[in-house]
Amino acid sequence: MFEHDDPVLELTDEQCWKLLTNTRHGRIVLTAAGETDIFPINYLAHNNLLMMRSAPGTKLAEIAINENVLFETDGISSDEAWSVVIKGTARILQSGEEIAAAESLGLKTWIPTLKDFYIEVKPTRITGRHFILGQQPERF
Amino acid sequence: MFEHDDPVLELTDEQCWKLLTNTRHGRIVLTAAGETDIFPINYLAHNNLLMMRSAPGTKLAEIAINENVLFETDGISSDEAWSVVIKGTARILQSGEEIAAAESLGLKTWIPTLKDFYIEVKPTRITGRHFILGQQPERF
Repeated sequence: MFEHDDPVLELTDEQCWKLLTNTRHGRIVLTAAGETDIFPINYLAHNNLLMMRSAPGTKLAEIAINENVLFETDGISSDEAWSVVIKGTARILQSGEEIAAAESLGLKTWIPTLKDFYIEVKPTRITGRHFILGQQPERF
Repeated sequence: MFEHDDPVLELTDEQCWKLLTNTRHGRIVLTAAGETDIFPINYLAHNNLLMMRSAPGTKLAEIAINENVLFETDGISSDEAWSVVIKGTARILQSGEEIAAAESLGLKTWIPTLKDFYIEVKPTRITGRHFILGQQPERF
């Protein structure tokens, strides 16, 4: 899937979505009142959107103040690594129909509670890179 | 190491450092000119500091503008997960002595180049959480 001779390959949107679809766990970066926070989160890629679930708390409060979010997921093995970063906007699902559709996806959270909300992230920019891991070249 | 009955345990600084020391891969979040970026990065925890290595580029430019950074690392298995988040300040090592000491740590990067710089992150706040993964409680 990721053949390249250079140590780093810039991924196409299609390659990014393939990685996003095959992964369940990433991090969301939120900024509100000049303060930036990062939260690990389970997610699902669905219809070119990311779906997440969250209990009430800091994450939801910050999204209500500033919808602009950053999302990152990555993977690393002994000889290769990749990373996909999304810039986008987040909204909390409100309608019963949307929530029912989100629930049908079977998305799991790290701390399941009865009061979870669903968050949808709509990407405005996707970037991804694939790395062939190697040794540092010798300095001398 | 992480025994608890509640689904989530807030970790002590000591527990956070144990996890940081046993992990090599995280993400650094940088903000400059109102734009936030996230980069996957290899690191080493050493003397209550994080050491990273970077080629010249966006990361270094952003640190020069705004030293305040966020760092996250996490781990997930089938029945447990954890996450450690650091807020701190980053500086680029300048002196030959400091760089030699950093090089002796044997820190590897994803894209090794001859022009790497060393970045030291000094934490001002460390938070960590450990999760026992479970099923969502039934709504009905």
